[in-house]
Amino acid sequence: MRTLDWVDGRIELIDQTQLPQELEILRIETVPDLVAAIERLSVRGAPALGVAGAYGVALAAASTDPAVDPDGFEAAVRSIREARPTAVNLARMVDRVAPIARRDPAEALAEAHRIRDEEVVASSAMGDLGADLVRQLVAGDEPVRVMTICNTGGLATVERGTALAVVQTLHERGWLAEALPVETRPLLQGGRLTTWELQQMGAPHRLLVDSAGPFLLARGAADVVLIGADRVAANGDTANKIGSFSLALGAADAGVPFVVVAPESTVDLDTATGDDIEIEDRGPGEVGSIRGVAVAPEGTPAINPAFDVTPVSLITALVTDRRVVRFDRGEGL
Amino acid sequence: MRTLDWVDGRIELIDQTQLPQELEILRIETVPDLVAAIERLSVRGAPALGVAGAYGVALAAASTDPAVDPDGFEAAVRSIREARPTAVNLARMVDRVAPIARRDPAEALAEAHRIRDEEVVASSAMGDLGADLVRQLVAGDEPVRVMTICNTGGLATVERGTALAVVQTLHERGWLAEALPVETRPLLQGGRLTTWELQQMGAPHRLLVDSAGPFLLARGAADVVLIGADRVAANGDTANKIGSFSLALGAADAGVPFVVVAPESTVDLDTATGDDIEIEDRGPGEVGSIRGVAVAPEGTPAINPAFDVTPVSLITALVTDRRVVRFDRGEGL
Repeated sequence: MRTLDWVDGRIELIDQTQLPQELEILRIETVPDLVAAIERLSVRGAPALGVAGAYGVALAAASTDPAVDPDGFEAAVRSIREARPTAVNLARMVDRVAPIARRDPAEALAEAHRIRDEEVVASSAMGDLGADLVRQLVAGDEPVRVMTICNTGGLATVERGTALAVVQTLHERGWLAEALPVETRPLLQGGRLTTWELQQMGAPHRLLVDSAGPFLLARGAADVVLIGADRVAANGDTANKIGSFSLALGAADAGVPFVVVAPESTVDLDTATGDDIEIEDRGPGEVGSIRGVAVAPEGTPAINPAFDVTPVSLITALVTDRRVVRFDRGEGL
Repeated sequence: MRTLDWVDGRIELIDQTQLPQELEILRIETVPDLVAAIERLSVRGAPALGVAGAYGVALAAASTDPAVDPDGFEAAVRSIREARPTAVNLARMVDRVAPIARRDPAEALAEAHRIRDEEVVASSAMGDLGADLVRQLVAGDEPVRVMTICNTGGLATVERGTALAVVQTLHERGWLAEALPVETRPLLQGGRLTTWELQQMGAPHRLLVDSAGPFLLARGAADVVLIGADRVAANGDTANKIGSFSLALGAADAGVPFVVVAPESTVDLDTATGDDIEIEDRGPGEVGSIRGVAVAPEGTPAINPAFDVTPVSLITALVTDRRVVRFDRGEGL
């Protein structure tokens, strides 16, 4: 099944806050419900957020005709666009569909469908290009051991994913020895979602706490690190889930290739470098408790950056749906 | 109050698995109960484990006279010594008290008391030496921001602690701007215990997930990283809680001093380098659930190294209760 899709005039999506315990489908018919779902991470992952944003504009256009109530329509669009700040895909896909909706509300849905279909094709292409690259980067022809962070699978896109699409393709080709997801505190997308997807695809895997990643790289436990991206700046600096940077430091220290996998829609040439990327702080609640259980004294203050920025100097290559950019060979975007 | 002590013929200790929700005192009268308390981490921290081991031998000698039942006594001693493998203090303090108990069981308790008192003096000395060193390492005379991992406070020793003793001394001298503990998955000693101790001492602090540490170092959020140690090898390589190595990589990348604080009793000249340190794998249970709540699909396999090894090349200095060793200036142990 798809992570999210348009079914019978509304958005249907897997509620990722309930996985892996429950596979629950949300049916979303209004813009405020979509914004709430994005904010609480029921839907997440840069490409999936792009598709959700596109369908959100279609929902807005269907309920609030831009010609009749332009203020209402623009407010709805803005609320979707600003539901989360870091992933470029959300704003970008909202900005792609909104002008079409302004001209012809009925066309918005068709454009959103195109965006969805493009993401499906892109995931498949990233899987192929990424698997080929991994085979080149890792010496020998033994199956490879891949460390990864957060969830970059079908749940983060529409199908298959970005970095985890590469893992899936490696597995389908018989080239995967083992996937090593880190759990990805605070929201545990690696522990809850990536393990679930790896189980679904029958791929061997072992879970790590985040801080074990760099040490296990130093001890030779993985042949390559594959991560997704929330935003790739023009110089190649990459914003991704908090913890990506420490894996990049670990990979560089261990001499292990560190590869970013993201569709072209995540590349943001309007952002010059990582220093220009806004980092969302999601507040102390997620740090002080885990799925409702207190793990710190009540009211403990926290710093909770949802993302970090890995400088291009630590990135071996970027795999998109159309190309491989070898930063380690001096190539640029 | 002390983390552990000998009261009315038995060991009393704070059950650290219950903090910060409950302050519960365990009263331990038998060796098997002590071994169980060590294994489930009711008592933890290298110096505290040393004192617990010493009192454990006193308990063994009191219940099983080595002259009457030598096999029973040796089996009891062995069970304490092997309750956890990585911290050198446990085995070392057991080995210090056991020969005395074999000669004169009544003398074992006096030796255990000496070990306890030595640790109290050592914590105070480390606080002073460490605070002086931090003041030298950090330019200017503004109060400093200290990142730290795990729990290295009074709860890890008898009073005050190791790395957190330095934080406490900095705070008492008016030199502490803020402590930044990382939560320290899987068992969350930073989130549960260090925050609790910082609260008790009234020191400003904010909690981080582990993987945010290296990124916040890169963004200039801390002036120094202070960690404890479970074992310092002869060349300075240091085994400590998993996640220490990634903070060390982050500190080196950011040009922030990285200081190990540990009593001489944690320095193990019989271990040549970090490669010779056994790393305990505590199994998948701690990774797949957090305080009883599932955070991964049931049965998910995991790699769970309790410790990592930071190479001496990444360590600025070691502070013990007797000296400061500046590895960054080529000094050795």
